Amino acid sequence: MAKINENYRKLVAGYLFPEIIRRVRAFSEAHPDASVIRLGIGDVTLPLAPAIGRAMHAAVEDQLQQAYGYGPENGYDFLVEAILQGDFASRGVELSSDEIFVSDGSKQDSGNIQEIFGSECSVLVTDPSYPVYVDTNVMAGRTGEADERGVFAGIHYLAATEENGFTPEPPSERVDLAYLCSPNNPTGAVASKENLSKWVAWARENDTVIVFDAAYDAFIQDPALPHSIYEIDGAQECAIEMRSFSKRAGFTGVRCAYTVVPRALNGTTPGGERVPIHDLWSRRQATKFNEVPYIVQRGAAAVFSPEGAAETREQVAYYMENARRVREGLASAHFTVFGGEHAPYVWLRTPAGLTSWDFFDQLLQKTHVVGTPGSGFGPAGEGYFRISAFNSHENVDEAIDRIRKAFA
Amino acid sequence: MAKINENYRKLVAGYLFPEIIRRVRAFSEAHPDASVIRLGIGDVTLPLAPAIGRAMHAAVEDQLQQAYGYGPENGYDFLVEAILQGDFASRGVELSSDEIFVSDGSKQDSGNIQEIFGSECSVLVTDPSYPVYVDTNVMAGRTGEADERGVFAGIHYLAATEENGFTPEPPSERVDLAYLCSPNNPTGAVASKENLSKWVAWARENDTVIVFDAAYDAFIQDPALPHSIYEIDGAQECAIEMRSFSKRAGFTGVRCAYTVVPRALNGTTPGGERVPIHDLWSRRQATKFNEVPYIVQRGAAAVFSPEGAAETREQVAYYMENARRVREGLASAHFTVFGGEHAPYVWLRTPAGLTSWDFFDQLLQKTHVVGTPGSGFGPAGEGYFRISAFNSHENVDEAIDRIRKAFA
Repeated sequence: MAKINENYRKLVAGYLFPEIIRRVRAFSEAHPDASVIRLGIGDVTLPLAPAIGRAMHAAVEDQLQQAYGYGPENGYDFLVEAILQGDFASRGVELSSDEIFVSDGSKQDSGNIQEIFGSECSVLVTDPSYPVYVDTNVMAGRTGEADERGVFAGIHYLAATEENGFTPEPPSERVDLAYLCSPNNPTGAVASKENLSKWVAWARENDTVIVFDAAYDAFIQDPALPHSIYEIDGAQECAIEMRSFSKRAGFTGVRCAYTVVPRALNGTTPGGERVPIHDLWSRRQATKFNEVPYIVQRGAAAVFSPEGAAETREQVAYYMENARRVREGLASAHFTVFGGEHAPYVWLRTPAGLTSWDFFDQLLQKTHVVGTPGSGFGPAGEGYFRISAFNSHENVDEAIDRIRKAFA
Repeated sequence: MAKINENYRKLVAGYLFPEIIRRVRAFSEAHPDASVIRLGIGDVTLPLAPAIGRAMHAAVEDQLQQAYGYGPENGYDFLVEAILQGDFASRGVELSSDEIFVSDGSKQDSGNIQEIFGSECSVLVTDPSYPVYVDTNVMAGRTGEADERGVFAGIHYLAATEENGFTPEPPSERVDLAYLCSPNNPTGAVASKENLSKWVAWARENDTVIVFDAAYDAFIQDPALPHSIYEIDGAQECAIEMRSFSKRAGFTGVRCAYTVVPRALNGTTPGGERVPIHDLWSRRQATKFNEVPYIVQRGAAAVFSPEGAAETREQVAYYMENARRVREGLASAHFTVFGGEHAPYVWLRTPAGLTSWDFFDQLLQKTHVVGTPGSGFGPAGEGYFRISAFNSHENVDEAIDRIRKAFA
C-alpha cells in the first residue's frame, strides 16, 4: 500500500484562507444581493504600477527576439544587484550577490526553509503568527497532535500580547529554529532595533537560527525602525531573512520574493560539525526549484527604478491611508485597536468577548464585511481579529460605516 | 544547536546540471576563444511564439487596468479548461477541473510529490532517470547512503537497457511509489500502450502509485503512442501525471506546468484506512505554493489557441529535425544511438568503453561540444551519453561535423 504522510492528518481543518473563502462563498450564495467587502486576505487591489508594466512589456519583446530559457539559478544579476543596492546597501547592510535567492514567494520560502533542518529541531513561533510556519513543521513531522484550540504539541508558542505590545522578547529556553515577522502579520506590530537586538543576542548565545519574515517592511513609516534584521550587528551569523514584492509592489498575482542566507550562518551535524546553511539552501533550490520567470524578474527590478520606486511608494501610501481610516474609524466605534501604523493590518480585540470565528460570522452576517479571525493565527489570536487595509478608500469607508452602525 | 537535515549530506556531489555548468565554465575560462556548442541541458533556443507574446502583452495591459492578485488556488479556469480540452478530452480522457493543479514546473512537482507520502514508502525509478526523483527522496530520508557509483541503498533501480529497448516492464517485487517518464529523459525511449498497460495492471495489483512524467509528450511523432497514462483504462486509480509547457512551448524561462491528481487515486494510512491522495496534494499546494503568475497562465493558455498550437508545433518540429540530424550524423560516424525519434534527446553508447564523464571531458576538449554524461542519471546510464536537440540547425550541424572528425 502507498502509505500517506500521516502528519498531514494532524493539520487542523483547512488552511485558514481557503476556509474563509469557503464561508464567504456560502454566505454569498445564500445572499446573492449582499455587497460583500473583503478586508480578509491581504491581497492588493490597485493595478500594477506603470513602470512595472513597461518593464514587463519590454521583457515580452525580449522573449520574442531571442530565447530566455533557464536563467541563473538564484536570479538574474540585474535583479540581484538592484536588491543588494536598493534594500540593503542603502541601509548600511553589506551582503554579497550569492547570498540572495530570488523566489516565487515568501510563503514558499518560509514553508520550504524547514526542510534543510533536522527532523528533531525544536521550533518557536511568536503567537499569533502566519499559519505557514507551524503548518509546514507539522507536515514535516516535527510536532505531535493538535489540541482542541489547534495548539500543536512540540511547538513553542511565544505569546504576543497587549502587555508586551505584541513584540515579545526572546524566551528563557533555547530552541533550534525561531520564526519572527516584523512588521507583523497579523498583529501589525513592529519590532524596534532594541527588541531585535535582544533576539539576535539570544540566538547567538543559543545557536538558534532565526527565520525573519520581512514581507511587510515597505509599510514602515518611522525611519528609526529596522527594515532588515541585518541592521543588527551579528545577525548574519544567526538569521535568514525573507522579503517579498507581493505587498510592496502589488505582486500577489505576479509572484516574486527573495530569501537571504548569509554565508556566515552555520548549522550543526549530529556529529557536531559546523556546516554552512547556505550550501543546504542552495542545494534545495537547485533540486526543487527553477528560477522565477524572466518577465517577472524584469518587473521586480523595475520596482527599484526611480519611477517604479515612486509609484509603488504611492501605492503603499494609499493602503496606509486605509489603515489609518480603519484604525481611527474602529477606535471611534469603541473598538480596541492595535497595529496599522507600520503595517497594512489592524488588529482588534473582538467586542463583548466574542470568539474570533463568532465575530467573523457576525461581521459577515451583519455588515457583509470579511476579516480574518485571530484564532486562525494561533491560540493567542483568540479574541482578536485582523482587518486588512488592502481595498479602495471607498470600500474601506463603507465597511467602517457599516461596522460602526452594527457594533457601536 | 540548529541541527541540519543530515540527509542532504548523502547527496553525491552537486546536482548534475550545475556540475556541467561548472566544468564548461572552467573550460571556457581556460580556452576563451573556443566556440562552445551546448547540447547538454535541455533548454530551448527559439524565441517565444508570437501568439504567446501577444497573450502576454495583453495580460500586462490587464494588470495595468485592474489588480490581478492571488488567483484561484490551482489555476485560472481559462487555463484549466484549455488543458482539459486540449490535452485530455481531445485524446478521449475525461478529467474534471479540480483534478488539474497548475504549477511553476514539473521539476518542482516531481520533487515535491514525495512529501505527501509516508517516510517509510519504498521507491522505484527506472534507471537512468531524471535526477530529481531520486535526490528528493534522498533529501526526505527515504534512502541509505550512496555507494561509489551514486547508487542509494533503499531505492529500487529498474534498469532500462538496450535489451529491453529502454522501456523496462514492471518488476516482480512491489513498491509504494514508482516514477516513470515517457518520452524518456534521458534515453529518448517512449512507452507503448502495451508497456504502459502492464505498468497500470501491476500498480493496481500492488497498490502502487505511479508518478508519470510526461513533460516531453509533445515530441511524440507516432499517433499510436500514448501521450497520457490516462489513455490506459484504470490509470486514474493508480497514477499521478505531470506535464509541462517548458519544452513544448519554449517555457523553460516562462515557467508553467501542471500535475493531474485524479479523485479516484487513494493512499493508505498506517491504520489501513483508504484516503484520497487528491486531498493531500491540495493541502500541500495550498500551504506551500501560490498560483502561477497571471501573465504566465495567459501565455500558457495561448499554447492551445489555433495560432499558438500551430506555432509551437513548428518549434517542436524544428527541434525534432535537429534530433534527426544528431541521430543520423552520429550513426554515420559509427556511434550506436538510441532515442531521438519521439523525444528531443539522443542517447548514445560512449565509444571505446569510455566512462560517461570521460567522454564528456573528451568531447568538450576535442570538439567544444557539451553533452550530458549518462551516469549522471543513474548507474545504468554509465557508458552512455545524452545529446539534446535544443539548439539551432547550424550549431547542430557544426557539432556533428566536429564530432565526426574527432571520433570517427
